Amino acid sequence: MTTIGILGGGQLARMLALAAHPLGIETVAVDPAPAAPVRAVGHHIRAELDDEAALEELARRADVITIETENVPVETLQRLADHVPVAPSFRSLEASQDRLHEKEFLRSIGIASAPFADVPHAAALQGALAAVGLPAIVKTRRFGYDGRGQYFLASEEDASQIGTSLGSTPHIAEGVVDFTRELSVVVVRGEDGDIRTYPPVHNVHRRGILRTTTAPAVISEEAAAQATSYARRVVDALAHVGVLTIELFDAGGSMLVNEIAPRVHNSGHWTIEGAATSQFENHVRAVAGLPLGDAEPRGYSTMVNLIGHIPDTRAVLSVAGARLHVYGKAPRPDRKLGHVTISVDDPADMQARVEQLRAALEDRES
Amino acid sequence: MTTIGILGGGQLARMLALAAHPLGIETVAVDPAPAAPVRAVGHHIRAELDDEAALEELARRADVITIETENVPVETLQRLADHVPVAPSFRSLEASQDRLHEKEFLRSIGIASAPFADVPHAAALQGALAAVGLPAIVKTRRFGYDGRGQYFLASEEDASQIGTSLGSTPHIAEGVVDFTRELSVVVVRGEDGDIRTYPPVHNVHRRGILRTTTAPAVISEEAAAQATSYARRVVDALAHVGVLTIELFDAGGSMLVNEIAPRVHNSGHWTIEGAATSQFENHVRAVAGLPLGDAEPRGYSTMVNLIGHIPDTRAVLSVAGARLHVYGKAPRPDRKLGHVTISVDDPADMQARVEQLRAALEDRES
Repeated sequence: MTTIGILGGGQLARMLALAAHPLGIETVAVDPAPAAPVRAVGHHIRAELDDEAALEELARRADVITIETENVPVETLQRLADHVPVAPSFRSLEASQDRLHEKEFLRSIGIASAPFADVPHAAALQGALAAVGLPAIVKTRRFGYDGRGQYFLASEEDASQIGTSLGSTPHIAEGVVDFTRELSVVVVRGEDGDIRTYPPVHNVHRRGILRTTTAPAVISEEAAAQATSYARRVVDALAHVGVLTIELFDAGGSMLVNEIAPRVHNSGHWTIEGAATSQFENHVRAVAGLPLGDAEPRGYSTMVNLIGHIPDTRAVLSVAGARLHVYGKAPRPDRKLGHVTISVDDPADMQARVEQLRAALEDRES
Repeated sequence: MTTIGILGGGQLARMLALAAHPLGIETVAVDPAPAAPVRAVGHHIRAELDDEAALEELARRADVITIETENVPVETLQRLADHVPVAPSFRSLEASQDRLHEKEFLRSIGIASAPFADVPHAAALQGALAAVGLPAIVKTRRFGYDGRGQYFLASEEDASQIGTSLGSTPHIAEGVVDFTRELSVVVVRGEDGDIRTYPPVHNVHRRGILRTTTAPAVISEEAAAQATSYARRVVDALAHVGVLTIELFDAGGSMLVNEIAPRVHNSGHWTIEGAATSQFENHVRAVAGLPLGDAEPRGYSTMVNLIGHIPDTRAVLSVAGARLHVYGKAPRPDRKLGHVTISVDDPADMQARVEQLRAALEDRES
């Protein structure tokens, strides 16, 4: 195993490449952006993810192909698999890239999620809302991320206003769940079926974008066990190879799975410093057919995303224990440009450091 | 600060480059080898370290220039410093690349080392041995590494045999010290004079090549304090910027400094997993003028070098807690090709894991 091909060349591919080098593994990523973040640390084929020639080149250069995004056509992964091993398989994509299929898959393996109903076209909205109740969220079934393509409907009026804008794009309506917190579990499954789960973490979103992750989440043992068993059940059912992430709502002790991402995940970035083996190294190990590493946490971690604006490096690094990760992307509103992780051995140290970090991030003049 | 230039493109430059990317810093390294290890993760100018055109290009492309080897001509660093900031300065090179100057420098700042005497030419050997006693080690004053260019002299006969082979190359004779263990301290000094010391570590060499490092070393608090204060004194005296390493003999409680390396060091590789901030990241931070990171150890680490032969990746990664680092070098006897670090929170776990690792490394058939 010397080269892993990656569909997508963003920050996830970049961090996969950084984790692969020490194992003697190189990466080659397909991404249309001329300045794709992966470029500085791995090989880059500049092309769209459905470009035939680029995919042929990728299959020729890679010993195995993986993904950094679920927004890859299932057919692309299926076609590639005729020529070169692919991990995860198209089944993991199928289960996750369409929100309706995702919820149906979860239900089929006995995992609870929020009430949902198909909205194949605008005219079906009323019936769907009757099924899931109000308030509800209407989302595109495919290709949404970071809260894009979502409508929050509090009332019948809201519903009638957005009705026409749905057009003929397939959507899904989901009942809004009264949850106390959002959690996620990053899990990795090896080729041999070995499974390691990172501890559940607590995620805070704002305007649909992940802002901070606290690891491990402070939840009951029972809640952690249930979240973890869901993650194991998902990768087992899919025979998934690589990292996969489930996002959950903690709804008063009962766990509802909100989303599956069949890949390394923003809520797992803390594992670079905060776990015995990072999610990136474990994904590389899994797709390369190597033994998985310990997923045990090391101390306590808080990950803060850098969104829209890169703070002063000096100010960030002045915070004791702060580790900076920038992705080499040009600033743009609501764009994830990097993250900072603070890891401590004594949880009592965390709050002061996070406050110091927030001050550093808010000081745009420094 | 966007680009650090590096004189040398070996594994140290490679690990510096890997540490620089998350900070948004790129590297460009000069190295004559077409397959220099840095190549996979940073820019590479293929040229000798004294190639005028290459150095001009480096000065043009880099915001600051550093070294991964002390075997760079002092004049090269001085000339570069006329055009671009250089860290560390030529003074750190001067103090370390000639073994006689090194020992004289240490003496001048009150740091003990083994008895030594200049051997400017073969005819001076007898007098030098009379001064330092037998057994003694005769070493070239410059450009030795990993035990090359060294003679161990147990008797007058040994001395008369090697006499002529010294020729007119300047050598130094050093009295052999009766030490219980070899230690080293990795220290980093920032542009602002801030100093962080990693804990003293215990190194085991065989045939002049470092085999294992145990971190932290199990030594008395007094011994650790003395070793640490020596390291601080050296970087202070040199106004060194960046990482520097001192190697010491623990001679029954009193510490004798054996060598200074004005750079990141093999005995500091454990810091990637075993310290809050790695020696590589801290060197990058220092030369980039950024605040230093914590040098506190995280748990207990054992680093084992991979020499001459790359073991089976699967076997190494089967060892719980083992983290592999290969350098992308072709195997050759006595060549450092990579290293493995095992980090544990409970020191009681270490021995079994190291034994499992040794078994994996010795199984050349796997």
